[in-house]
Amino acid sequence: MEYRLLIDTTDEIGLVYKISQVLFNHNLNIENNAEYVDKEENKFFMRTVITGDFDNEKLLNDIKKILPLNATIKLTPNGKKDIVILATKEAHCLGDILIRYVSGDLNANIKAVIANHNHLKDLVEKFGIEFICVSHEALSREEHEQYMMNEIDKFNPELIVLAKYMRILNDTFVKHYHKTILNIHHSFLPAFIGANPYKQAFKRGVKIIGATAHYVTDDLDEGPIISQDIVRIDHTYSWQTMRDAGRNVEKIVLSNALNLLLEDKVFIYGNKTVIL
Amino acid sequence: MEYRLLIDTTDEIGLVYKISQVLFNHNLNIENNAEYVDKEENKFFMRTVITGDFDNEKLLNDIKKILPLNATIKLTPNGKKDIVILATKEAHCLGDILIRYVSGDLNANIKAVIANHNHLKDLVEKFGIEFICVSHEALSREEHEQYMMNEIDKFNPELIVLAKYMRILNDTFVKHYHKTILNIHHSFLPAFIGANPYKQAFKRGVKIIGATAHYVTDDLDEGPIISQDIVRIDHTYSWQTMRDAGRNVEKIVLSNALNLLLEDKVFIYGNKTVIL
Amino acid sequence: MEYRLLIDTTDEIGLVYKISQVLFNHNLNIENNAEYVDKEENKFFMRTVITGDFDNEKLLNDIKKILPLNATIKLTPNGKKDIVILATKEAHCLGDILIRYVSGDLNANIKAVIANHNHLKDLVEKFGIEFICVSHEALSREEHEQYMMNEIDKFNPELIVLAKYMRILNDTFVKHYHKTILNIHHSFLPAFIGANPYKQAFKRGVKIIGATAHYVTDDLDEGPIISQDIVRIDHTYSWQTMRDAGRNVEKIVLSNALNLLLEDKVFIYGNKTVIL
Amino acid sequence: MEYRLLIDTTDEIGLVYKISQVLFNHNLNIENNAEYVDKEENKFFMRTVITGDFDNEKLLNDIKKILPLNATIKLTPNGKKDIVILATKEAHCLGDILIRYVSGDLNANIKAVIANHNHLKDLVEKFGIEFICVSHEALSREEHEQYMMNEIDKFNPELIVLAKYMRILNDTFVKHYHKTILNIHHSFLPAFIGANPYKQAFKRGVKIIGATAHYVTDDLDEGPIISQDIVRIDHTYSWQTMRDAGRNVEKIVLSNALNLLLEDKVFIYGNKTVIL
Repeated sequence: MEYRLLIDTTDEIGLVYKISQVLFNHNLNIENNAEYVDKEENKFFMRTVITGDFDNEKLLNDIKKILPLNATIKLTPNGKKDIVILATKEAHCLGDILIRYVSGDLNANIKAVIANHNHLKDLVEKFGIEFICVSHEALSREEHEQYMMNEIDKFNPELIVLAKYMRILNDTFVKHYHKTILNIHHSFLPAFIGANPYKQAFKRGVKIIGATAHYVTDDLDEGPIISQDIVRIDHTYSWQTMRDAGRNVEKIVLSNALNLLLEDKVFIYGNKTVIL
Repeated sequence: MEYRLLIDTTDEIGLVYKISQVLFNHNLNIENNAEYVDKEENKFFMRTVITGDFDNEKLLNDIKKILPLNATIKLTPNGKKDIVILATKEAHCLGDILIRYVSGDLNANIKAVIANHNHLKDLVEKFGIEFICVSHEALSREEHEQYMMNEIDKFNPELIVLAKYMRILNDTFVKHYHKTILNIHHSFLPAFIGANPYKQAFKRGVKIIGATAHYVTDDLDEGPIISQDIVRIDHTYSWQTMRDAGRNVEKIVLSNALNLLLEDKVFIYGNKTVIL
Repeated sequence: MEYRLLIDTTDEIGLVYKISQVLFNHNLNIENNAEYVDKEENKFFMRTVITGDFDNEKLLNDIKKILPLNATIKLTPNGKKDIVILATKEAHCLGDILIRYVSGDLNANIKAVIANHNHLKDLVEKFGIEFICVSHEALSREEHEQYMMNEIDKFNPELIVLAKYMRILNDTFVKHYHKTILNIHHSFLPAFIGANPYKQAFKRGVKIIGATAHYVTDDLDEGPIISQDIVRIDHTYSWQTMRDAGRNVEKIVLSNALNLLLEDKVFIYGNKTVIL
Repeated sequence: MEYRLLIDTTDEIGLVYKISQVLFNHNLNIENNAEYVDKEENKFFMRTVITGDFDNEKLLNDIKKILPLNATIKLTPNGKKDIVILATKEAHCLGDILIRYVSGDLNANIKAVIANHNHLKDLVEKFGIEFICVSHEALSREEHEQYMMNEIDKFNPELIVLAKYMRILNDTFVKHYHKTILNIHHSFLPAFIGANPYKQAFKRGVKIIGATAHYVTDDLDEGPIISQDIVRIDHTYSWQTMRDAGRNVEKIVLSNALNLLLEDKVFIYGNKTVIL
């Protein structure tokens, strides 16, 4: 079986030597290896894909011994991760993920799609996936999020994908799912933070629009960026045709970021990401 | 109701004046107008979106009178066009079109999906669209195409979309559907013409791969190009991961080209296109 | 001789007809024509390249007669425009323009380069172009700008190009050169407005950086955008290597925008541009 | 002082461990490290930037001992490399390099520019760089190349940059400068191999054009690709305006590839490159 060894630690002289020594002693095959050192911040990141006949616990222990105390070490199988998708009314991002799913191109189990409207129910159920509507009507933001969390927690997902979930999230929610929420923002962040970015972009007369996939941490649209892309526009675009052009970018950027997360290639690092 | 007036003719002094005079006399509103003159080839193209209370036949006649004899003039409503999609086994291009269709983002009626394998039957029927399998097994290319044509002709489509239909088409087929076949080729044409472009690209060690949407005319992968796009790759890509990255480009390029055709924005011009 | 006829007016039914009639009656050849109508704002823009043996003044008068009173009409020869370049210390944008100039690829006469430092003197004088240093030391912003304006006005330029001129401009200066100042901003506006955009971008952890060429109107970095482009980066970039990558984009975007202005292709339109 | 350790070898289990052990024992600081393993071809590439107080020869010997016999090992200081530029008549690529050079942005000493025409003499000499014209008139290709080689060899360059040198090179020349010739080809290879790619692209009606920087090995335009980029065009482009748009891409791609070579980031690998 194939595993991914993920290390995130302060840097020290000899780290690569010490880690590779442990791997060598455990008689592993290294299928793929990438590391990144930020000399200025004194940080070390490593992602190694290993195969072979080894004892997981012993390997982790041996690595732990030679790393700084504050090191984060993970050993994850490269199988499918359980995910839950949150959506509202728009189908393009969700639909792109569903088509990948049904084609066998998505390395994940979609446990459920949870939305605050019923618009996408038919689409989701076509694919044999559970659809749950948690309407926000007549509820405070806190109450609604609590209901959402109750539903999400039933599936114990490793990753929550906001596929155009058009609600602002509170601290309680974000902290509950620390480092497991992926969002697509419909602009080239940090331009046009907040609501109606296409209207903002139209008003500003930009010649390029974009989309940004990012982790959701505390602040709105301020989490660590994972992936961005753009599309060129011109004066003939209305904000609606800008939105239509933007949707292509949104779904590709979200799916690319989702793939990176499913492959454990993204390390969070302050308000940034390192992608190995 | 909104109409598109499409003119393709040899150029003459005063053409814009004469055409705009007719439109003015018919008391039309011009919602949008674009023209292109190729001085070297002495060609004139015009696409005008008009509204108002006018007599279609009289308008066409009046325009015909003031244009050169070889002019092609079309007046088409901006409603939905009937299309038939041809596919083989891959779902990404077809799926992208289906999601747009079900979201109401596609200005077309999908009359049927016809494939030479059964792989996509389930996906297509989820969307309530007729799926027809015309297997090519035990048939000559000519026989198979004849069966395909029989099925296609039942729907009398204005446009045939090859959404990764992996069969070479003969002259008889191509001529029968003159200027109505849209194909997506999985490379940045004219690089890597023919089979297995991703394997070719991998072998050549390119740093960028692309996709090309084009009309199918006589020669394989040689028809007028409508749209192209690219994605950057590097030495870490195998031909399989190049293909996965390429699929994102393929589906976006095909859908963009399809939209251009559905909006009557593409003029064929020798082996090229003018897009207005 | 070739002229460009530029019209910017409120829209009316029959405008194209009336204008093309005047052109037809003057027996002109239309080499190239582009127009744009914004139905929502009721605005009409047209750029027509004409040749032939005509009387400029009479042509302008005849057009004026058939246009709304508030119309702006210009008839400009397609020859070289006089420009003045403002710079500070960085050579990449200025150098790119100089190489185009010496290669005969720039449709402009560079009358002078004026800078607030002496760093670029040697480079500019290599090309036989006058270099003027107007140091800002010991001067108020107003005084310095007055000295700059005195120098600029000697050359009576049709266009002022800020090729990384790193000083904020006051209202007096901007109004004095209304609609004739082109700036390159080293970010993908409206992201990272203001000082040190590369440091801002580094801190935010973006995956794409860009550059924006825009007219300078009143507010800092808020003028109508003419051209934008981007380059992809990743976590391995420091703000310095981001800046180096960004310089390639800056110079290309500035030169592209400069070419558009030299060809009279850019119409200002509120805080936006229409490019025909 | 900073050195780059470059290793190119067949892969073996434990390579990273053994190499990092040697580096650790020599008490080096690793400023930056990147490796790539091609499991299918069983190849291992590594580029490590090291600082510290070490004995170069001893370090190389110790590494040699633990690597397979066929390994290529290089230890190069990160200082300026000597380069010679070959050109013909066009200034854009050469000019871009010269501006970087004079700005201090090029990590190289330009020893000379050698051309088969005199057009660029003035430009080159502005920058205080030796210009040598070796006309090909009345010479056979072999004779001309022999004269070129005589001139080039006087400068003993580590790298030869073909900045739009529009002559086909023979085997003798290419073999003499094995793995040290960088070329810019004015198309998105492998599309439009050979002469007049912009005319070919115009004729084919493509919607994107590109440029390719590659090593020159034996066959015309067939060497390992280092860098590629593209620019979008449309039906309004003539082959001349396509060429103008293409020049921007050519110069950026060439300069980017040149930087990669000056930083020893490019490994040749069959007909491909690995960039670390």
